[in-house]
Amino acid sequence: MSEDRAFIRVLEPAQDLLAQLLDGKTTPIALTARCRARIEARDSEIMAWQALDWNFVQRQIDDLSERPANARGALFGLPVGVKDLFDTADLPTAYGSEIYQGHCPMADAAAVARLRAEGAILIGKTVSTEFAYWKAGKTRNPHDQSRTPGGSSSGSAAAVADGMVPLAIGSQTAASTIRPAAYCGIVGFKPTIGLISLAGIKALANSLDHVGVFATDVTGSGLLAGALSGRTELMTPTALKTPPRLALVMSPEWESASQASRKAVQHAANLATGHGADVRTFDAPPLFAGLAEIQTTIMAYEAARELAHERRCHFDRLSQPLRDLLTQGKSISATTYDDACRQRDDSLMALDRLFDDADVLLAPSAVGEAPLFEYGTGDPIMSRAWTLLGLPSITLPCGAGDNGLPLGLQIAARPREDEKLLAIAAWLEHRLATKP
Amino acid sequence: MSEDRAFIRVLEPAQDLLAQLLDGKTTPIALTARCRARIEARDSEIMAWQALDWNFVQRQIDDLSERPANARGALFGLPVGVKDLFDTADLPTAYGSEIYQGHCPMADAAAVARLRAEGAILIGKTVSTEFAYWKAGKTRNPHDQSRTPGGSSSGSAAAVADGMVPLAIGSQTAASTIRPAAYCGIVGFKPTIGLISLAGIKALANSLDHVGVFATDVTGSGLLAGALSGRTELMTPTALKTPPRLALVMSPEWESASQASRKAVQHAANLATGHGADVRTFDAPPLFAGLAEIQTTIMAYEAARELAHERRCHFDRLSQPLRDLLTQGKSISATTYDDACRQRDDSLMALDRLFDDADVLLAPSAVGEAPLFEYGTGDPIMSRAWTLLGLPSITLPCGAGDNGLPLGLQIAARPREDEKLLAIAAWLEHRLATKP
Repeated sequence: MSEDRAFIRVLEPAQDLLAQLLDGKTTPIALTARCRARIEARDSEIMAWQALDWNFVQRQIDDLSERPANARGALFGLPVGVKDLFDTADLPTAYGSEIYQGHCPMADAAAVARLRAEGAILIGKTVSTEFAYWKAGKTRNPHDQSRTPGGSSSGSAAAVADGMVPLAIGSQTAASTIRPAAYCGIVGFKPTIGLISLAGIKALANSLDHVGVFATDVTGSGLLAGALSGRTELMTPTALKTPPRLALVMSPEWESASQASRKAVQHAANLATGHGADVRTFDAPPLFAGLAEIQTTIMAYEAARELAHERRCHFDRLSQPLRDLLTQGKSISATTYDDACRQRDDSLMALDRLFDDADVLLAPSAVGEAPLFEYGTGDPIMSRAWTLLGLPSITLPCGAGDNGLPLGLQIAARPREDEKLLAIAAWLEHRLATKP
Repeated sequence: MSEDRAFIRVLEPAQDLLAQLLDGKTTPIALTARCRARIEARDSEIMAWQALDWNFVQRQIDDLSERPANARGALFGLPVGVKDLFDTADLPTAYGSEIYQGHCPMADAAAVARLRAEGAILIGKTVSTEFAYWKAGKTRNPHDQSRTPGGSSSGSAAAVADGMVPLAIGSQTAASTIRPAAYCGIVGFKPTIGLISLAGIKALANSLDHVGVFATDVTGSGLLAGALSGRTELMTPTALKTPPRLALVMSPEWESASQASRKAVQHAANLATGHGADVRTFDAPPLFAGLAEIQTTIMAYEAARELAHERRCHFDRLSQPLRDLLTQGKSISATTYDDACRQRDDSLMALDRLFDDADVLLAPSAVGEAPLFEYGTGDPIMSRAWTLLGLPSITLPCGAGDNGLPLGLQIAARPREDEKLLAIAAWLEHRLATKP
């Protein structure tokens, strides 16, 4: 397994690359050339990219070279991939749909503007599923090209996992950051809802949509999320002074995870216990039993609403799964939707108690390994409830499944405790790395 | 006053026009011709419209004529104005900014798609302030052209008040529906946050942005909001069986309203009492004293975030007030913003108690009459707190100020009690009309 995955170390972690850039040990042009070489060598197989424009990359490098040393930005010279769900003024933006092939927005999405302001280099647009829903794009899992990279942020996860870029951005409405990161054996971090602007991202379900980030380690994910949100504390989270309090939540979802996935989480928990962490097992409160279903209801209802234009003008150009979602969403009554929203509100109020005895919750990041490509982008069930509640969550590579493919450990914290989550994730990452 | 305002009866109320259209007493082409005549006669003075395209209007009429009788839609043949903050695929969309002059989006905003699906006829785009913030557009108040129509939905309010269209849509982040409707002497209704999709609207502050609607009466506002949200119960709210319980909230804002505004609200309350309503006066709970300021903090912080692209690429093309807002927003720390969000959450939890003894809250819709044009679009203070909490709110014409210009009665209900709010507003509207 560890041998197979060696290629994800083609690039050093983002923080190390940034240090090299700031020290002059490498340059934006040299680093970008490494990314380009990797993409040119590998992308005919991985197909992570929807749009690439090396002239635009060169213009960004030229612009960067004119920045004074004190205004380089927090991501100076770091190549970044951008999910094709984000508007970009300099690259075509198709939202994973044939309807928008060749679409050129007039402005960058706010998150893209933040990347540029912070000195990142946009390498290109990465493949998204159709409007961030089910229909897979062309991208393959770098660990096994017969497998899906997961969705909907398929290209961003695969590009980082394959060492084509050190960082990438994506989104999550159900599990679209956590799942592909887990399938690809990298770190995916979805901060608290609302922490990063959604302006200029094609909406799927407004009350559930989040921006997420991809990196090869926890520090890199914090660096990128911190730069995007303007929260510098995420870039250098304070290290834990005492071992954390962890809770395995025995939610109904736990039972749907594969044995290998559950064992991987249990293994991480045991390791943490061995290093002094307080680990307990919770039965999920009854209120939480229906959360995954509530997420499904809200997502369908809002998707039918947000995609009203596509439903009206381009229904025949939508995939069958998306048509089904929109038709289902249209059939949900306002009363059912309102009830679902009220249950979310009630669960949010009850959430605090859940964290009385634990700093973070642990669960598998997905039900198992990446499925075969032809079976779609995988089941989002393990993240639905936490996305619904807007909890910050992160996935770390953690063990392997029966086919030797990566599994993930999903960790979630109270809303707005993103910094604490990153600190605990870094602590766990260190423990997992030292005892493989 | 009542003589001066006769012109707002140029068009019958939307519900009456709809009945005429469905009965064949008028046709989409005849009604649209009336709107066109009014616009051509008056818009050189009122300047409510940012973009008009009569060929596009004709194409919509042609399309409508092909609809089978059972698929005409809830707004069949009704002319509607659309604030130039909403993307339209067939009309230019400039968001009130020179940066986007001539911008042609690839898709309609979701709310615009809903209008079209329901058979409304898009007459054109109405003037918005710059990105729905302060900088006034060209529009004048139909009651007195030396006065502002209010903002940011300036053109939508003025076009409906002037009888150019029976209905229009706008938005509200602080007071951008309630205030202009009040200044223009019409009904403005901002449903519960999230009730109408924000997809395809230029974001100002994601957690505060709402879609709002304009009509000449409560029924018309419910018709439009019901069609946009797919909530048919808003189109024909159940009439009240018993007189309502009303509360005048003595918030800090109450003191900032003009004497005439306070008298108008008191007058409406007295009238309601005379008709059997239970009217009480509340002191605002201490928790609520800071809400307007919290709204201001969240709006500035989020605006700086949502408009990151314009801040980065077009700062020199923004107005000074917007530059100031974005600069202020950038200087707000994440801690301050998070605290503001937590206070909002706490207030929302405390809100239920406020409604224990009252169905709705009453307040002036604005501090007074529409200011002179050169003084800007007016003070949003009277709506900031209720927008922050996402309460459904509506303004009814209610009395006049010292200069004979319209004043408004603002009514707010619990989140998701939009239908009840409309029923109570209709009850009050009837009482105000029968005793002028």
